[in-house]
Amino acid sequence: MANITKKVSWSSRADESGITGEGTPLLNGSEQPRLSRQLSGGGRIFQIGRLSTVDLEEEISSEEQDSLRGRPKEIPHNEKLLSLKFESLDYDNIENQLFLEEERRMSYMGFRCLEISRWVVCGLIGFLTGLIACFIDIVVEEMAGIKYRVVKENIDKFTEVGGLSISLILWVVINSVFVMVGAILVACFEPIAAGSGIPQIKCYLNGVKIPRVVRLKTLLVKVFGVICSVVGGLAVGKEGPMIHSGAVVAAGVSQGRSTTLKKDLKMFEYFRRDTEKRDFVSAGAAAGVSAAFGAPVGGVLFSLEEGASFWNQMLTWRIFFASMISTFTLNFFLSIYHKNPGDLSNPGLINFGRFQNDSVAYNLYEIPLFIIMGAIGGLLGALFNKLNYWLTIFRIRYVHRPALQVIEAMLVAAVTTTVSFTMIYFSNDCQPLGPEHTEEYPLQLFCADGEYNSMATAFFNTPEKSVRSLFHNQPGTYNPLTLGLFTLTYFFLACWTYGLVVSAGVFIPSLLIGAAWGRLFGILLASITSTGSIWTDPGKYALIGAAAQLGGIVRMTLSLTVIMVEATGNVTYGLPIMLVLMTAKIVGDYFVEGLYDIHIKLQSVPFLHWDAPATSHWLTAREVMSSPVTCLNRIEKVGTIVDVLSNTSTNHNGFPVVTQGAGGEEPAKLCGLILRSQLIVLLKHKVFVELARSRLSLRKLQLKDFRDAYPRFPPIQSIHVSQDERECMMDLNEFMNATPYTVPQDTSLPRVFKLFRALGLRHLVVVDDENRVVGLVTRKDLARYHLGKHGLEELQLAQT
Amino acid sequence: MANITKKVSWSSRADESGITGEGTPLLNGSEQPRLSRQLSGGGRIFQIGRLSTVDLEEEISSEEQDSLRGRPKEIPHNEKLLSLKFESLDYDNIENQLFLEEERRMSYMGFRCLEISRWVVCGLIGFLTGLIACFIDIVVEEMAGIKYRVVKENIDKFTEVGGLSISLILWVVINSVFVMVGAILVACFEPIAAGSGIPQIKCYLNGVKIPRVVRLKTLLVKVFGVICSVVGGLAVGKEGPMIHSGAVVAAGVSQGRSTTLKKDLKMFEYFRRDTEKRDFVSAGAAAGVSAAFGAPVGGVLFSLEEGASFWNQMLTWRIFFASMISTFTLNFFLSIYHKNPGDLSNPGLINFGRFQNDSVAYNLYEIPLFIIMGAIGGLLGALFNKLNYWLTIFRIRYVHRPALQVIEAMLVAAVTTTVSFTMIYFSNDCQPLGPEHTEEYPLQLFCADGEYNSMATAFFNTPEKSVRSLFHNQPGTYNPLTLGLFTLTYFFLACWTYGLVVSAGVFIPSLLIGAAWGRLFGILLASITSTGSIWTDPGKYALIGAAAQLGGIVRMTLSLTVIMVEATGNVTYGLPIMLVLMTAKIVGDYFVEGLYDIHIKLQSVPFLHWDAPATSHWLTAREVMSSPVTCLNRIEKVGTIVDVLSNTSTNHNGFPVVTQGAGGEEPAKLCGLILRSQLIVLLKHKVFVELARSRLSLRKLQLKDFRDAYPRFPPIQSIHVSQDERECMMDLNEFMNATPYTVPQDTSLPRVFKLFRALGLRHLVVVDDENRVVGLVTRKDLARYHLGKHGLEELQLAQT
Repeated sequence: MANITKKVSWSSRADESGITGEGTPLLNGSEQPRLSRQLSGGGRIFQIGRLSTVDLEEEISSEEQDSLRGRPKEIPHNEKLLSLKFESLDYDNIENQLFLEEERRMSYMGFRCLEISRWVVCGLIGFLTGLIACFIDIVVEEMAGIKYRVVKENIDKFTEVGGLSISLILWVVINSVFVMVGAILVACFEPIAAGSGIPQIKCYLNGVKIPRVVRLKTLLVKVFGVICSVVGGLAVGKEGPMIHSGAVVAAGVSQGRSTTLKKDLKMFEYFRRDTEKRDFVSAGAAAGVSAAFGAPVGGVLFSLEEGASFWNQMLTWRIFFASMISTFTLNFFLSIYHKNPGDLSNPGLINFGRFQNDSVAYNLYEIPLFIIMGAIGGLLGALFNKLNYWLTIFRIRYVHRPALQVIEAMLVAAVTTTVSFTMIYFSNDCQPLGPEHTEEYPLQLFCADGEYNSMATAFFNTPEKSVRSLFHNQPGTYNPLTLGLFTLTYFFLACWTYGLVVSAGVFIPSLLIGAAWGRLFGILLASITSTGSIWTDPGKYALIGAAAQLGGIVRMTLSLTVIMVEATGNVTYGLPIMLVLMTAKIVGDYFVEGLYDIHIKLQSVPFLHWDAPATSHWLTAREVMSSPVTCLNRIEKVGTIVDVLSNTSTNHNGFPVVTQGAGGEEPAKLCGLILRSQLIVLLKHKVFVELARSRLSLRKLQLKDFRDAYPRFPPIQSIHVSQDERECMMDLNEFMNATPYTVPQDTSLPRVFKLFRALGLRHLVVVDDENRVVGLVTRKDLARYHLGKHGLEELQLAQT
Repeated sequence: MANITKKVSWSSRADESGITGEGTPLLNGSEQPRLSRQLSGGGRIFQIGRLSTVDLEEEISSEEQDSLRGRPKEIPHNEKLLSLKFESLDYDNIENQLFLEEERRMSYMGFRCLEISRWVVCGLIGFLTGLIACFIDIVVEEMAGIKYRVVKENIDKFTEVGGLSISLILWVVINSVFVMVGAILVACFEPIAAGSGIPQIKCYLNGVKIPRVVRLKTLLVKVFGVICSVVGGLAVGKEGPMIHSGAVVAAGVSQGRSTTLKKDLKMFEYFRRDTEKRDFVSAGAAAGVSAAFGAPVGGVLFSLEEGASFWNQMLTWRIFFASMISTFTLNFFLSIYHKNPGDLSNPGLINFGRFQNDSVAYNLYEIPLFIIMGAIGGLLGALFNKLNYWLTIFRIRYVHRPALQVIEAMLVAAVTTTVSFTMIYFSNDCQPLGPEHTEEYPLQLFCADGEYNSMATAFFNTPEKSVRSLFHNQPGTYNPLTLGLFTLTYFFLACWTYGLVVSAGVFIPSLLIGAAWGRLFGILLASITSTGSIWTDPGKYALIGAAAQLGGIVRMTLSLTVIMVEATGNVTYGLPIMLVLMTAKIVGDYFVEGLYDIHIKLQSVPFLHWDAPATSHWLTAREVMSSPVTCLNRIEKVGTIVDVLSNTSTNHNGFPVVTQGAGGEEPAKLCGLILRSQLIVLLKHKVFVELARSRLSLRKLQLKDFRDAYPRFPPIQSIHVSQDERECMMDLNEFMNATPYTVPQDTSLPRVFKLFRALGLRHLVVVDDENRVVGLVTRKDLARYHLGKHGLEELQLAQT
């Protein structure tokens, strides 16, 4: 059953990095904090000897590591756990001597150049994200067109002969094959590329290191996966994955190298640290939203809503710039593709079409109706989330082998197609073809000449086009029964689809479900009221319904409002959309959390919310912190360091550095903080005091060495340290962060939380009133507390 | 010449509060930092005796205080000074025992109720702000209508008789009287209400306490002042003041009481501290923007761009809610006023009108043109700002008496009117009246019947309507010469007008200037190119020009883009507006700062930017901090505290509390921080250890006592302390913030800055490695450093 955690969790391959989580001992608070320095002399030499045979380049397989660490084989999977395997990003700069020297050497012009290169990187991020969106859009459109022609020919041929079951089989096979390819790509090559990627990016922007989430390989799988799943006719959209794609592009471009390609352009080396990378990833995510919805402002707000801790104006502008370039690029290339070059007024993958003011003005007395729709959206969203939650639990338990996952995806594709076909077959909702043939994929089926089957259109179109036609088609285009049936089936299909091992988003299906019941609502309203002057156009109800349904599922408010407003291209609807989204959120939150939050919780990610739980003032740093903490001396024995680093199960990834008083009698004071990754680099380069003395010509270690190793530092096991070297000493003074943030042990949890969250810290040292280390607060110590039904609850920590 | 600082500066009446600035000694950095505890035994009893005769309620006149403090009489006024008289807001909660006890007592439901009341307050803020905007709009419209009818009748009567000079005089007199009333209101009753109020709100949101800026009296003067100046025909807008009005409403509503009205509703007492108040003021400012431009999202972004340090999602939503309610309220009441009740699609004071997509689509090859326009806007904006800078310097030197200020305002009104009249008189730009009589104020003058003078329209309309007609009128409505002349004159008039003692904004004049030259640009373009299919509509160039000019003057980007997009009601123009605003900012910043920043600098406000100057890594907390710092003991003698508080010239407003070692030999460790305001309340309530022992029934001091005194704590001079009481002791343990944020003395300036800015601190204690106090960092210590032309510069501190 170890496979459960291996195959379903986001970080299935996390173990390769060889870095384990912050091993917070579960016993704290009750225990009296004390300064304990676990410096085991040198008793584990056998282990060192064994491990030193491992080559530096060789990756340890995860099975081997599992057995090494004695990980429990079966873990009850629920949302009341916090996984220990997720690391924090270091958003706080490591201000050690090397860093300060570099910063001090740099002239004002140097900083200007850096700033300009940040803008250039953001421009590139926007451009590439736009290109990717454009590529996905064009390929999907072309392949959907081919598929439509093939199936239509077949159907036309068999409609009168009566052999429609052959058409059905043909269609099922085509769709299943596409979905199979997509599912195999994801399941076998990069499981992290499954789904929309929004929960993963949310976590990344929150400061959690999700392994492999921003790699080039993930991007490739994502792009081709999304094409396959959309063309395969699943109830999915291609918008969510754009956000993930943008983030990957950002991480790649800003680092100037790719691990997947094993290529280092030697550019932007200054940006090789978590602080800068996370900022660029924000820009990438924003550019993704911007390309997906043509919503540059919405993209910025999305990034801020999900990722910001500290609002920085220059950063916000750069994010905005990336968003702008992204939507511009997409728009420009799509305008060429659509043979209308230079027309820049359709700036997103999905375009809701223009709502002209005259036709769809709303009035004050419609506001209550909108709010009711918001409540319906909240209810339906909660139902959707709850169903999907159960389904996900089921999948975690029983569907965790790649083969099974691929088969499930194909099954969904087949069922989706069959249901569509059946509904098309039995619906007799014939509509006359418009004079201008506005419908792109009309299917005549059993309709009279000059008419088309509107149900077929709804199922055959890409979901984006269906949304648009629900918003804009003339009153009377859709039959209420058709809409009702469509809503019902699509709701369950979309719910089943989300969480499959295909890369696909939930935005568009949500919008589509909402638009369908919204339009139905509008039609019913028009049929109830007699005068019907203002109610005649059900399009606006479709829009409100779409907003309500999407809001009920994902529970975003501010950014989603702006995204919707930008996508409709009309500010007039800002107000009702806001109201609807707020209502949907309030109603939905009453029952169950948002879809993304559910999936984050099921992965046991230590996600930090905006504030500490309201009733947590009685907790202080003393109760929250992990203690005892392993400390190092300013000048420390190599053997000790190797032992400390090898003992991954109980140690953190940051070690307070302390200084012993002159007499040796006085207690040790905190004087710095050093990271596991820094120690690894030091060990790798053998920066030992004795060696420095003997070889005077030894090159001084520079920041560049740390940057080259970033972000995948080798595991301690891969570093060979001889018995002689173990007796050497290492001088940490130059490399440690000499001014770590600290809090006194009586600080209340909300205060600790605020400092931690606002500055994006990874380790926060707790000191007593004489500046002695008493504990360490990390992300998991803070994420553990949450408000449950019975007041403040503490999540369990698990190795899962 | 003491009047200079008294009458022109924002805080002319600041002295009433009796609190002086953080007295940072100018000698630091060079001096070796050491722990010096200035605890003068009891040598200044004579002073206490004298001061104790001052009654608690009596306010000390500022003259008296001037002489008391021996303030220098003449100070060279330039922008290289930092004033010591501005205080910081305490955005960080004071977590003392009282506070923690209250928070711990509160149940989860209690926090829910608080949260709900925050939403209610935000709703109220939005509602009232919307109402105020509505009131201003309706009054201005009605009075402008009356004025137009009176003048029109007169002109019509005299046009053919030839006595137009009488009309001119009538018009001049009417305008001057309006402006005079407005100027007298501002100059005599509340000088802080002058101008748009945006710089003041910017400073407030940045964390600087600007005295009297959020009082009810300021609001009243602002509202009536803006009505007078708009009706008086000045080149001003009513939008800027809305932001200030919203902020005042927010401060008033959230505190549940008004000092001006001497009324305490005993509501929302929990919100009586800087943290909560500043959050609500953000919401108020956003609601103001939202009401002014019908731009709720723009309002939120404005607040964030100007005010946010820590982005908090819940807070952002509340701000958004306030904005939404505000624009909704305004829209609703205006729709009733406009006899179109319930139509909710015109949500702002200014409404740019709808740009229909078909008519004004833009194309890729127009982007360079837009960028050129952005550069022009940047240049013109820089010119505007530079001229206004010189003018402001001149005003500070020579125009500082109220009488002179009122006369200047009247002069400007008279000149504006005369210039307008002359231009109308000499222009022969007759345009045919449209069939639907779209012009609201047509003036025939010397035009033929059925025609109207378009220059007269431009000058007679409220500026908002002129902007709209520049955007939307048919091609050919305006004669290029008219536009050119109009731009030129309006540019100088607006520049002269900004900074007068009238309450008025610069947004609309900027938009108008820009729209005028933008339209001119469009017309010239159309006349150069022959085909002219896309160039035919100069309206879009007017829009771009307006954006460029406004961006060039105020230099906002993200929020302004969104505001413009929301005000035009069309997302299509988002991209060009962004580009234009960015270009305008880059070009403008090359020459001179933004208008608001210039005015902030001229007031010597210690404004904290987003980051520390780039090249400041070589500075550490040790060089930056103020030292020596006055510390207090946990249990301190009342006499000492009174002496420390009386010595306002050298002390800060926060005092580290230290603990002496048991033997008296060990150095004193930091154990807390207490504020001057807290000590004042303790002294006022005579919370002395001896008294507590003798009177056991004494009511324990509660948080409520501190909240009641907030925000205007009495000066120390008003508190009577007898000679006996001076010998008593005060126990500070319960009241001090036991866990103040600290930094080690080697922390680099950027790191100190980041902590300070992100958490909105007021005092940051610098400690050595044994947790002993070595210094204190306050806002002025950080704001002092800025990047000048010759690298890092240090501003001088002055008592100004």
